[in-house]
Amino acid sequence: MAELKNDTFLRALMREPTPYTPIWIMRQAGRYLPEYNATRKQAGSFLALAKNPGYCTEVTLQPLERFALDAAILFSDILTIPDAMGLGLADMQQLQYVTDAVRQIRGALDGRVPLIGFSGSPFTLACYMIEGGGSDDFRRVKTMLYQRPDLLHTILEKNTQSVIAYLNAQIDAGAQAVMLFDTWGGTLAHGAYREFSLAYAARVMAGLKRSHEGRVVPRIFFTKGGGLWLESMVDIGADALGLDWTVDLAEAKRRVGHKVALQGNLDPNALFGEPATIEREAARVLAEFARDGNADGHVFNLGHGISQFTDPAHVEALVNAVHRASARV
Amino acid sequence: MAELKNDTFLRALMREPTPYTPIWIMRQAGRYLPEYNATRKQAGSFLALAKNPGYCTEVTLQPLERFALDAAILFSDILTIPDAMGLGLADMQQLQYVTDAVRQIRGALDGRVPLIGFSGSPFTLACYMIEGGGSDDFRRVKTMLYQRPDLLHTILEKNTQSVIAYLNAQIDAGAQAVMLFDTWGGTLAHGAYREFSLAYAARVMAGLKRSHEGRVVPRIFFTKGGGLWLESMVDIGADALGLDWTVDLAEAKRRVGHKVALQGNLDPNALFGEPATIEREAARVLAEFARDGNADGHVFNLGHGISQFTDPAHVEALVNAVHRASARV
Repeated sequence: MAELKNDTFLRALMREPTPYTPIWIMRQAGRYLPEYNATRKQAGSFLALAKNPGYCTEVTLQPLERFALDAAILFSDILTIPDAMGLGLADMQQLQYVTDAVRQIRGALDGRVPLIGFSGSPFTLACYMIEGGGSDDFRRVKTMLYQRPDLLHTILEKNTQSVIAYLNAQIDAGAQAVMLFDTWGGTLAHGAYREFSLAYAARVMAGLKRSHEGRVVPRIFFTKGGGLWLESMVDIGADALGLDWTVDLAEAKRRVGHKVALQGNLDPNALFGEPATIEREAARVLAEFARDGNADGHVFNLGHGISQFTDPAHVEALVNAVHRASARV
Repeated sequence: MAELKNDTFLRALMREPTPYTPIWIMRQAGRYLPEYNATRKQAGSFLALAKNPGYCTEVTLQPLERFALDAAILFSDILTIPDAMGLGLADMQQLQYVTDAVRQIRGALDGRVPLIGFSGSPFTLACYMIEGGGSDDFRRVKTMLYQRPDLLHTILEKNTQSVIAYLNAQIDAGAQAVMLFDTWGGTLAHGAYREFSLAYAARVMAGLKRSHEGRVVPRIFFTKGGGLWLESMVDIGADALGLDWTVDLAEAKRRVGHKVALQGNLDPNALFGEPATIEREAARVLAEFARDGNADGHVFNLGHGISQFTDPAHVEALVNAVHRASARV
């Protein structure tokens, strides 16, 4: 594999010094980019796109052609695992298209920036499996939680084993960092969060390979809407915690006792502002993190996936503003 | 007006001792009750129901016939104000059907329990006005926030004046407590929350009549998803803060420095559990609040409106469990 030319992202995740704050953007390969929509049209459907390693490679690299991003993230569907599970454990053979994509992307990146692998958290996957999609109240999964917690635990146990196997396969194939998206954990009551989401995320972390190709593979854990519970996330084995835009980074840093790196947390809607506003908001987020005088250990990102209605020129303004404003003197 | 026979709710809001923890349920007059659906059908539409004081009185009292609730809440539409505003301030003449409903309900209650008046917060009303309904990303209101904050402030200013006039009219008509629902404030970034929601909620509080009929009219403020920001809400002039189910009540009590009462915070989905589970969950919420040995200053409620799919028998189990488990010895 080609030598990594830009490792600011990996270093920031390990809270090592970097010359500036690295940035990547959740859903950076997505519908706000005309070239993504063109590829998707060519593929015929989202699933056809997500299941074809060639297309995945193409769209994963598209945002890097436009913006000076410091990481690439595997383009994939959060539903790959439920798709491959049926009623038992996920069949990793069926998921070979994902590891093929990881390998192709690593080749295409040629060491430019690191590649992030990812999976939904065991609880988040359970939500999709039980609700049959997104939901505004998660009535079905919560009914199971309150009526048949034993059954939900059985599902979460299977998901945990599948997620571990899936992420380790991505690491073996070349993912240089991994992120666990706990998209729906924030909908749980505080006690239920620990029992039904955090506990399984911790077990995923414990099951992951720590290094590959002689380098540590950092782990990021992100519970959207989980800002209240940061203290409880510190010791689950993640190197970094993702934060949505409701959290003050200075406060979050204090609460996690400087034990993990933080990733976030600009409101994605700030990108609807003019470039001057975006620059001001980016500077504000950077300043919040560095309020204690130390800017290391921060990966800049949005607090949630980028909106499909975002102007790509505004993304360029953001990436450049973050690099410029965070350059260590 | 008839003398109030059960004032546990009003006393709990003022953190005075009560013989048990009072309970009411957000959206308690609603679609989970067959008799509500019958009245709504008779009225022809939700708006026809909400604009008719007789129907409002009928549905406001329906849950009290079934359950030993400790408060009634005015049945009304959160969109009454935007409806009456056009482009300027709300026309209170147009809202007379609301104050008529308050008077009729007070008469029908005959002192059984207190009546809560309510309004959406200035920011939440702005969301409905700008988005034209609910939203999953609040793109329009946030675009205005980041592009034209001056314009959003102008709208919030008008909303604030309207909300003050609206709630004071409800108080004059007989509302014995008032609640400000900041349903969408939790979608804001933390700095934006203070500037665009909390600041205006504070101005509403400052503009409200403090007492009526010789008794203090307590105020409840509830930002759904605002658990991270409790400290900033303590001094806005509310007597109680509403909490959703993501917050640990013992922790919340510590964070607000015992300066305000707390209302909440069972996950509405817990009502999908069996009665034994509901009893256990209710006891858990009560115990969390009373972990410091003091159960006063707590109004039991759900952390959000009750689901239309709830079994009324489960609501009965909850109300009785709260009363039984919280009875002071």
